[in-house]
Amino acid sequence: MLKEVKRALFALSDKSGAENFVRFLIEREVEVFASDGTAKYLEDKGLKVKRLSLITGFSERCGGRVKTLNEEVFSRILCRPGDPEFSEKFDLVTVDLYPFKGFKSIDNIDIGGVALLRASAKNFENVIVVCDKKDYDFIMRRLDEEGSLSLEERKKLAFKAFRKTMLYDFEISLWIGQGGNVLSLRYGENPHQSGFFYPLSDGTPFYYYGDKPISFNNILDAYRAWLVVREFDEPACAIIKHASPCGVAIASSSEDAFLKAFECDPVSAYGGIVAFNVFPSREALGLVEKKFFDLLVLPDLPDIPLNRRYLVPKSWDVEWDLKVAFSGVLVQEPDRGFNFEGVVDKDAIFAFKVVKHLYSNAIVVAKNGATLGLCGGQPSRIYAVKIALERAKGKCSGGVLASDGFFPFTDSIDEANKYGIRLVIAPKGSKKDDEVRRRAEELGIDLIFVEDRHFRH
Amino acid sequence: MLKEVKRALFALSDKSGAENFVRFLIEREVEVFASDGTAKYLEDKGLKVKRLSLITGFSERCGGRVKTLNEEVFSRILCRPGDPEFSEKFDLVTVDLYPFKGFKSIDNIDIGGVALLRASAKNFENVIVVCDKKDYDFIMRRLDEEGSLSLEERKKLAFKAFRKTMLYDFEISLWIGQGGNVLSLRYGENPHQSGFFYPLSDGTPFYYYGDKPISFNNILDAYRAWLVVREFDEPACAIIKHASPCGVAIASSSEDAFLKAFECDPVSAYGGIVAFNVFPSREALGLVEKKFFDLLVLPDLPDIPLNRRYLVPKSWDVEWDLKVAFSGVLVQEPDRGFNFEGVVDKDAIFAFKVVKHLYSNAIVVAKNGATLGLCGGQPSRIYAVKIALERAKGKCSGGVLASDGFFPFTDSIDEANKYGIRLVIAPKGSKKDDEVRRRAEELGIDLIFVEDRHFRH
Repeated sequence: MLKEVKRALFALSDKSGAENFVRFLIEREVEVFASDGTAKYLEDKGLKVKRLSLITGFSERCGGRVKTLNEEVFSRILCRPGDPEFSEKFDLVTVDLYPFKGFKSIDNIDIGGVALLRASAKNFENVIVVCDKKDYDFIMRRLDEEGSLSLEERKKLAFKAFRKTMLYDFEISLWIGQGGNVLSLRYGENPHQSGFFYPLSDGTPFYYYGDKPISFNNILDAYRAWLVVREFDEPACAIIKHASPCGVAIASSSEDAFLKAFECDPVSAYGGIVAFNVFPSREALGLVEKKFFDLLVLPDLPDIPLNRRYLVPKSWDVEWDLKVAFSGVLVQEPDRGFNFEGVVDKDAIFAFKVVKHLYSNAIVVAKNGATLGLCGGQPSRIYAVKIALERAKGKCSGGVLASDGFFPFTDSIDEANKYGIRLVIAPKGSKKDDEVRRRAEELGIDLIFVEDRHFRH
Repeated sequence: MLKEVKRALFALSDKSGAENFVRFLIEREVEVFASDGTAKYLEDKGLKVKRLSLITGFSERCGGRVKTLNEEVFSRILCRPGDPEFSEKFDLVTVDLYPFKGFKSIDNIDIGGVALLRASAKNFENVIVVCDKKDYDFIMRRLDEEGSLSLEERKKLAFKAFRKTMLYDFEISLWIGQGGNVLSLRYGENPHQSGFFYPLSDGTPFYYYGDKPISFNNILDAYRAWLVVREFDEPACAIIKHASPCGVAIASSSEDAFLKAFECDPVSAYGGIVAFNVFPSREALGLVEKKFFDLLVLPDLPDIPLNRRYLVPKSWDVEWDLKVAFSGVLVQEPDRGFNFEGVVDKDAIFAFKVVKHLYSNAIVVAKNGATLGLCGGQPSRIYAVKIALERAKGKCSGGVLASDGFFPFTDSIDEANKYGIRLVIAPKGSKKDDEVRRRAEELGIDLIFVEDRHFRH
């Protein structure tokens, strides 16, 4: 006899391997209940189990859609010490779901199984929930050793159950939303990858107008373009190429902002994405029209139709930022932070707001509210410094240089000095911060240390 | 009277605003059932509704944990034409869930509400499922116009319901998994962002040994390092800095692979991540030991303890690649594709396998199974070509150059020629493919066009 497991419930779609587990339990005097199909499978293997219908009072309804959704079953799962059902409760619940992936149809959306799993997982303090046959061996071993599972082990099984139902509903919603809420894109980042846009808000979170469907990279790059221009209160324009800005400017008018942003790197700007944080004037639109850009990102819908592809975000904030690594998801808060306390230099603030949006290591050289040279995605900070300054050459004397991370050495300051940079803004945190500060002082460069680093990997 | 809505069910946690909707339905002769709490709220507003307990035969069990989990209720939701319950079915089900976010506790994990939502959403062809009070107005309008909702509209509501239960279980599993399956990281990409690792497989998908907890960027960069070395059958080593390789090599031994990879950019390699696809020899480990690296990525656990931080992946494949954009998730297949049909040049294959793992626009210059110059994350392809060649200068005569995307112009070929590159491998797809091919022929450079592009944005 087991210490804490007297009664178990099995309701399985994939029944293979369950016979060993059930035999193990029966040999230890556990009373095993099973849904009809599972019971039949186990009985065929010579195992004596009780039908769940003894508890529910019915076999199935709605052509099999309702089999376990019954208050007596769920009370025996959800009860706590003190509840009258507690003495009759299921101590162990083993459920798997109709496979949905690979078998996508309405009929394969499991309702009862998900409810059993979620109820058991909720009550993990009192119920051992098993959603994966790979866990049978481990559980049998622990039951033999301890007669039960520790709270920590139960909690891990509960996590697995909620992860399973989460992924199950992700697959269902991805399927059911297609052609409606979920945008099927022509392809992912590359033509051999399939791609979708799955909105977390109602409907598509942007208006899109264009002569061809919007692409995966369009959406990603438009978002990043929009994140840049959102940084500014004054009219701002950003030109994005390959997920990073290649020209950003603020000005008193949208046309000036565009001209200043474009001037930064007219070669790279070709075919890029242009974003404005104010609705561009007729002049600005005329200037945009003369060049080839793939997509325009606007803060509002135009009054009259524009004869080009454009996108208008309805909202933009997201709660979590996700990246995939190994067989898991890296989840983080989006990078919203800024701390400009005490910073008054406008170009310093401008450049630092831009540098956050490049891949690290990133450097921005700017002057008069316009980027003159940008470089991101470098393995070494000094590379980024050299490339950004070289791109800004001849224009950046008296300008500023912003870095997304600290300077490990003084060489970046020396390099900035060669090009006549008057001010450097960078996060602190280097062992050589003091040296860097001294070098800047020696060279007559203003140095602003800020608190927050802004890597983007 | 409405054409298709005769009977409705309300079970709400946030009841505000429901009275208008219910009054609208009652005025149109809809029979409205409600769970006890919701019924009380509506009755207080002067609305006559029927208690759900008339159907279930009980008010609540397990201290309120079981209220709606009853076969009659679910049969009236899940039934199809022909089922005996169909004439009594709920045509409209309005459910919201106990708020879990911001109120994280076991008691706030909703079981019945989720089951009602999922059942109604599954049967969207016959049931209108409402999970968001923001939809009340739209639904009332459509009911007045048409007496029902179109199949497309019902399907959108079903999508919303499954998305809601998916996100709900994501939040629950993120909470319940903490301290166990979900790794709470010190921070996200930057110290002001909180970060987690949420495994999609059982347990943590890697072994980690180190004197300090693993960080968000460690995991992300280790994964990218591992993706690079996995490309190769022969012993391979990759050194990663800021999510991109700064040196990769293959050789007949792990120590040679390391030396060749390190040689590519000894400056940037400092503090980076080193990955091997074979267990490094004692000699290779000795070489690694002499430099400062943040983390070692190994294909197997060491026999004897290593006195440094290392990570060993248990598995690495993921089904979906995720990125966040606006209020949504961009979902794509991982970039697994390669097509080297007809390519026999080993350095061409080597370089092209590496270039896929840099941010686009990306260029790799290589020779004898080692990278000599790499550059990614550039707004213009010619920039990447120039930087990669400049980094490889003096070493790359007779080498190869790989590009992750097509060449828009012939200038990259001219540039490669200046440095003595003998072979160029790149995806086709440019309007100027023919011109590029002719220029390569004129200059005596072998040009291999491959099918697949490999952008990483």
